[in-house]
Formats: sequence, structure tokens, C-alpha cells
Amino acid sequence: MPDQANVKSEIIALIDRKDLAALKKYLEPWAPSDLAPIIADLPIGELAVLFRVCPRDLVVMTFTYMPPEGQKKVLKLLTQDQAAALLNALPPDDRTAFLNEQPLDVAMQLLSMLTPDERQVAQSLLAYPEHSVGRMMTLDYVAVHPEWSVRQALDYIREHGYDRETINVIFVVDDLGHLVDDIRVRRFLISPLDRPVRELLDGNYTMLSPADDREKALELFKKFDRVALPVVDDNRKLIGIVTVDDMLDVAEEEATEDIQKLGGTEALDEPYTTISLARMIKKRASWLVILFLGEMLTATALKYYESELEKAIVLSLFLPLVVSSGGNAGSQAATLVIRALALGEFRLRDWWRVMRRELVAGFSLGVILGVIGFLRISIWSFVFPGTYGDHWILVAATVSTALVGIVLWGSLMGSMLPLIIKRAGFDPATSSAPFIATLVDVTGLIIYFTVAFMIMRGTML
Amino acid sequence: MPDQANVKSEIIALIDRKDLAALKKYLEPWAPSDLAPIIADLPIGELAVLFRVCPRDLVVMTFTYMPPEGQKKVLKLLTQDQAAALLNALPPDDRTAFLNEQPLDVAMQLLSMLTPDERQVAQSLLAYPEHSVGRMMTLDYVAVHPEWSVRQALDYIREHGYDRETINVIFVVDDLGHLVDDIRVRRFLISPLDRPVRELLDGNYTMLSPADDREKALELFKKFDRVALPVVDDNRKLIGIVTVDDMLDVAEEEATEDIQKLGGTEALDEPYTTISLARMIKKRASWLVILFLGEMLTATALKYYESELEKAIVLSLFLPLVVSSGGNAGSQAATLVIRALALGEFRLRDWWRVMRRELVAGFSLGVILGVIGFLRISIWSFVFPGTYGDHWILVAATVSTALVGIVLWGSLMGSMLPLIIKRAGFDPATSSAPFIATLVDVTGLIIYFTVAFMIMRGTML
Repeated sequence: MPDQANVKSEIIALIDRKDLAALKKYLEPWAPSDLAPIIADLPIGELAVLFRVCPRDLVVMTFTYMPPEGQKKVLKLLTQDQAAALLNALPPDDRTAFLNEQPLDVAMQLLSMLTPDERQVAQSLLAYPEHSVGRMMTLDYVAVHPEWSVRQALDYIREHGYDRETINVIFVVDDLGHLVDDIRVRRFLISPLDRPVRELLDGNYTMLSPADDREKALELFKKFDRVALPVVDDNRKLIGIVTVDDMLDVAEEEATEDIQKLGGTEALDEPYTTISLARMIKKRASWLVILFLGEMLTATALKYYESELEKAIVLSLFLPLVVSSGGNAGSQAATLVIRALALGEFRLRDWWRVMRRELVAGFSLGVILGVIGFLRISIWSFVFPGTYGDHWILVAATVSTALVGIVLWGSLMGSMLPLIIKRAGFDPATSSAPFIATLVDVTGLIIYFTVAFMIMRGTML
Repeated sequence: MPDQANVKSEIIALIDRKDLAALKKYLEPWAPSDLAPIIADLPIGELAVLFRVCPRDLVVMTFTYMPPEGQKKVLKLLTQDQAAALLNALPPDDRTAFLNEQPLDVAMQLLSMLTPDERQVAQSLLAYPEHSVGRMMTLDYVAVHPEWSVRQALDYIREHGYDRETINVIFVVDDLGHLVDDIRVRRFLISPLDRPVRELLDGNYTMLSPADDREKALELFKKFDRVALPVVDDNRKLIGIVTVDDMLDVAEEEATEDIQKLGGTEALDEPYTTISLARMIKKRASWLVILFLGEMLTATALKYYESELEKAIVLSLFLPLVVSSGGNAGSQAATLVIRALALGEFRLRDWWRVMRRELVAGFSLGVILGVIGFLRISIWSFVFPGTYGDHWILVAATVSTALVGIVLWGSLMGSMLPLIIKRAGFDPATSSAPFIATLVDVTGLIIYFTVAFMIMRGTML
């Protein structure tokens, strides 16, 4: 019966028939973790009914699978008591994430519904900075002591394992709660039952601090292929764990941030479809205005070359073509370098290797475009004589020479600027494709007119 | 002793002292999975020594943690027999990935080193398309039968679990090998030992087909928070599993592809630092040439407006400013929409909602830039009289009106084109920021001159 659509429609049918007894019976044999993702997809009306009849385990699990919008709606449908019970039963990391999505006043109101113990937990998790490991950690782990036997440990897991976030990794702590080791549960399963836990230790483990950035956690998970990592305080006391399933979301959010910055906008930090229009416009306007102010320098530069433009109006025809090719080359280089930096493929001190590559690539790409540009102008001048005047050969030479210089320049700027920005301590993704394009536009104009002046002096200029 | 730097330097010291007996003894108590990532970081010379003394488990595990370049070097350092033993012992999914990185002739040579059984496995995995689930799956899973008791199942896991990729999920199959269910190992741990496995079944599981794209696997892992998913053939026979640790790499690779495409280049499919220059130039040139050919239309359009340019040379001063602002707005919109599509935040049929948002956002952003542009030209004309001629107010009106139109147009193009491209069955990330910018450049010129003609007719034009 693996067909989830069937399960879903069966549940909806039972709700429509208002047969709550049958519904309860239908839900009973399921593991909450398997049913929750299916229920989370239901329309809000059906959900409200379900949440009143479901066992609490299932309600809690389902709630964690829902998007923030749905969670908010569900909470409103419940009575005060039901909502309080639900909030208190939520795993601490999911509750932190949920509270974090709410406006401050709503979050405070929800906090007040918690029991004193749970409130303390929630407040301590919320006290960690956003995007920190502390915000993502859960307190539901299984810890055993080194002097126990494997049998004792397995018995303990059997008793306490069910409501823990993961039992794939078992943590070993001493009497003071200090982390001694983390052991995969498989090690317990394949060991003789009377062996002491101490003999299973290998002394090798990786730890996180609650203040670490979540990107560090992501890196460690990728490097060590673990399903859970321990979080310890300054005294190496075990205070929580982070699990790999949260990492897929972290990886996705980090990629989204980088992609949005590369596209020339502030990271939205909310889904495109649900962010308020005013907030989205604000996030986009800031960069757009910065780029506009930068691009204004092109008007200043062109003003400086106005007499050349008047003498050779043909130069203005190729202005957008030449200048934007530099921007495109720059945005390619910037994108590749920024992504390689994010993946740790090279370090800042390797800048010379990158520059050497971009010198060759930029020059080659410039020559390719230069040749195409030269052919374009020559062919047009043969087919439609007079299009670009008598001196078309000079025009073609100017455009193609300028293209080589500008594409090379764009590639160098695009590849080096992210490194400089990173060196200065900022996020290299800030040097977005549009940002590079704007810089190259301004400098490209100067290259274009300098080349024109050298080639056309005495004839057209 | 969790400090990995210490472990590493201790190992290096032992190798330098050529004390292989002590080295062997030092390595013995470690779990291969914990030591492997540390060893994988060692310089190649030390690695070659280590690989000769280490137990095979450790060698194999270490090999899977190394980057493809390092793997190739290590394989060359080993004798033919050693290399064959290593290859035969590799987990099938890691071996597939490794073979896939090699040129065809090397891959064939390596395949010939495998035992007939392993060769058949390797060839069948390699037969699946690139980026398919079949290429990523491993055959090392634990399967039990429904008629067994929990005790029998745990005994079986104790005996066979050690060299399996994961025992966090146990698969239940019938006598013909058909998948019946997947059960988390925790369910076995917390159940009475004499309960039959059949009573643990909940009938709820998700399956993959080996031909599925790896993005589908990623989606299911995100949705269901599993650590492993079963892969079945057309007859629902269990043929392998995919584990969550591979998903972090998939998520990263998919994001890299999207980012590179958005930056206006073909996806490199190799690290920036190691791809050959010729291949990188080829991947960048194709898009750069396409964009260049598109951008040529600006020269054609400008030729058409040449007489207007001659009459009002001042128009050419603001050409790059006006046109690039449209490109920037378009690249913002495209980036946001493409990422939202990739994350499944909305569907194609929601295009009207997106368009409505972009109509408002584009207009607002256009007005913001238009006002700034108007102020810039007015202030300059007061401070430096004559900069933009007597009709500067007309110039300011033209530039700011054109900005509103072009930014609005850019936002609409940027948001709608990815949807159109997706509708046509292509990857929406293809409509990169530079691609949108080029399109908006050409159409932006027409908007600019049309506005100029309307405002300046009878005075300057």
C-alpha cells in the first residue's frame, strides 16, 4: 500500500463521511514519521479535523513537516489548550525554527504558552544568532555511559529511543555530561552484549559549538558522512545534536542566497511567492540603485568623448555591443570564481593561478568575438555599401581590437574582484554578475575610445 | 583525542620513522570510517606507504573519501594486484563514480581487473544514464524477511551489518526479493525480540527506479527525511539503495550547475581549477558568441536611429545607462523566478500571479530609477550649465520616462522568459542573467528612441 495518493484520498473520504472512529482506526497502525508528510499536504479544513482526532505523536510530527504558512493557519484553528500541548511537544529544533518565522509579538505570545522548562529551552535556542548551529540543534539525543555494557545500552535505547530525533548515532558521556565519544548504533548492534561500552570507543569524533555558523556544520557533514554531529559548550559538555536531514535544507538555503546575490539582488530570505511586495521591492531597489549610480559614470565618460562621437557617429552604433560583451565575459568569470570559492576549490593565495587562467581564457574569448565582429562589419559593408562609411575598415579594426581588450579586461575583473571582496572580509557573492557588468561598462568605454583614437586619428577623428 | 591535526601528524611521524609495526598498531583500534577522512588528506607519498600497511577495510574507506585526482594517483602507486584487490573491494556506488571520472580506455582497463561478478555489477551500474539514481545506488543493504522474528533479524544484522552502507534502515523483502517495506532500525531496537518482523510493517514506503533522475531522489529525501531509499526494478524487485550522504553532494552539484548557467556559461561539470583551459574556453565561448550575435541587433537598431543620433548626440550619452538598467532589472527578476521554480515554490500555471507581482515591482523600481535619473540630469544642468544643451529638461524627461518603461519591460521579460523556456521543455536556468540582459538591451533601445521621438519631436528631433 505504498501509493500515497490512495492514502490521502482515503483519509479525506473518512473525514468527509465524518466517521471519526473509522478514521482513528485507520490511522492507528501507521508510524507517525511515515504518515506525517502525507497529512501535511491535506487542505486546511481536513487538517483541522484530523488534528483533533489524531494521537499527539502524529500531530506533532505532521506539524514539523508543514510549511510555515500552514503551521500558522493550523495553530489558529486549535483551541488555546491544544495549541499549548502541541507547542510543548514539538522537538526543540523545529519549535525554534517555527518561532523564528513569527513576528516578535506572536512569538512572545507563543512562548508564554510553554511550560517553564520548555520555555527555558526555547529561549536558550532562540538566543543563538540566526544561521548558527545553536538554532538548529535538538536536545533529543541518546547518551550512554562508558561503564555500561552493550546490553545495558541497548536496553536503554529500547526504552528511550522512540521519541529521540535519531538513534543512528549514540553519544557517550561521562558522569558530568562531558562528551567522550560518538558511536554509530551499528557498532552496538554487531558487538557482543556483555562487552562494556568503553571498549567500543575509538576516541575519534568531531564536535560543533552552538555559536558555529551552520555552513561549518554543512562542511563537516559533507566531509565525514555522518548522520548526526554533537554540539558541546565551552567545557565540552554535550548540549545537543545536529542531524543530517536539516543539512539538505541548509544547503538549499545557502545556495538560494548565493544565487540571488549573484543575480544582483539582496537575498530575499523568504520564498519569492510569499514575500510582501514592499519588502521585495526594497531588497531589489537597493542594488538596482547602486548599479544605476555606478552606471551613471558611463554618461560622464561619454560626455568626455562627445566631440569624438560627433565626428564619428558610427562609433555610437557599436557602443552597446562592445561594452556588453565585456560585461558578459566578466559575469561568466565572476560566477565561476565565486562558486569555486564557495566550494573551497581554491584559496585566496592561489589568485595568481586563477589570474593566469583568465588571462588565457579572456584573450582567447576576446579574439573569437573580435573576429566575428570584424567579419560582421566587413560583410555588411560589402553587401550594403556605405552602411559604415568609407572608412569601414577602420571601424571594423576599432571594434574588433576593442573587443579583445574589453573581453580580456572583463574576464580579469570578473575573476579578481570576488577574491578582493573576500580578502576584505565580505561575501564574494556580492560581486554579482550585474555589478561586474556595470564596472566593465564604464572601463570598457574608455578602452573603446582609446582604441578608436589610436586607429582613427588623422582619418575619422 | 578528538584533535584530527594531532592524529595526522602522529601518522606522518610514524611513517617518517619508517616504524611500520608501530604504525600498524596505532591504526588498529580505529574505526575505518573515522580514520579515512583524516588519511585522505595526507600527501601522496605518505599515502602510498600507508596503503601498503593498512588493513584493507581502511584502505577501501579512505579511497572513497579522496578526490578523483588523488584516487587516480594512488591507483598508479599500487601494484597491479593491490589495485585489483582495492577495486574489487570498493562499494559499488563509489566504484561507479570513480570509473565514471576516467577516460574510456582507462575505465575499460580497470573494469578488466575486476572479478567476473564485480565486473557485472560495475557494468550494470555504468549502464544507467549519467545523473540517474542507478549510477548512485549501492548494493550493500540489509534485507530481512517478514516471517523472521525481531531476534532473527537483529542476529542477521549483527552478522552481516558491518560492511553494509547503512543499517539505519532495514529492508523487508519476500522470497522473490520483492520489496515489502522499509523499516527504520530503531523499530527493531525498541520491539520485543520474539515479535515477528511482519508485525513491524506499516506498508508505507517510497521507492525509486534506477532510471529516475537524481533530482527526484533529492526531492524525496527532502520531503520524507529518510536516511536511505530503496531502488526497485519494474517488477518491484529490490535492486539497491540510495543513501542520504550522497544527497549533499547531489544538492551541491545541482546548485553549481544552476549557478553557472545563470552566470551565462555552460555548466562546467568539472572543478574550475582542474578543467582544461581548452574545455573551459569552449564552454564559455558558445554562450558568449550567442550573446554577441544577439547583441549585434543593437548595432542594427542604432543604425536605424542614426539620423536621430546625429540630431541629438546627447541621446547617445545616456544609451548605456538606460539600456543596462533594464538588463539589471531583468537579471534580478530572472534569478528570483528561476530559483523559485527550482525550489518548486510555484508552478507554470501560476504565471499570472508572478506577472502581477512583476508588473508592480518593475513599475516601482522604474519610477525610483527614473526619479534619480531626472535629478541627476537637472542638477548637472544647474551646476554645469550647457552640459546637456538648452533642452536639458526634455533630455531629463526622455531618460526618466524611458527608464520606467525599460525597467518594467526588463522585469516582465526576466520573469516570464524562464516560464516560457520551461514550458517549452528546456531548463529555465538557460535564460541566464546575461541572456535576459542582451534581449532587454535590444528592445530597450527601441523603447528609448520611441520615447525620445515622442518627447523631442519638433524641438530636438
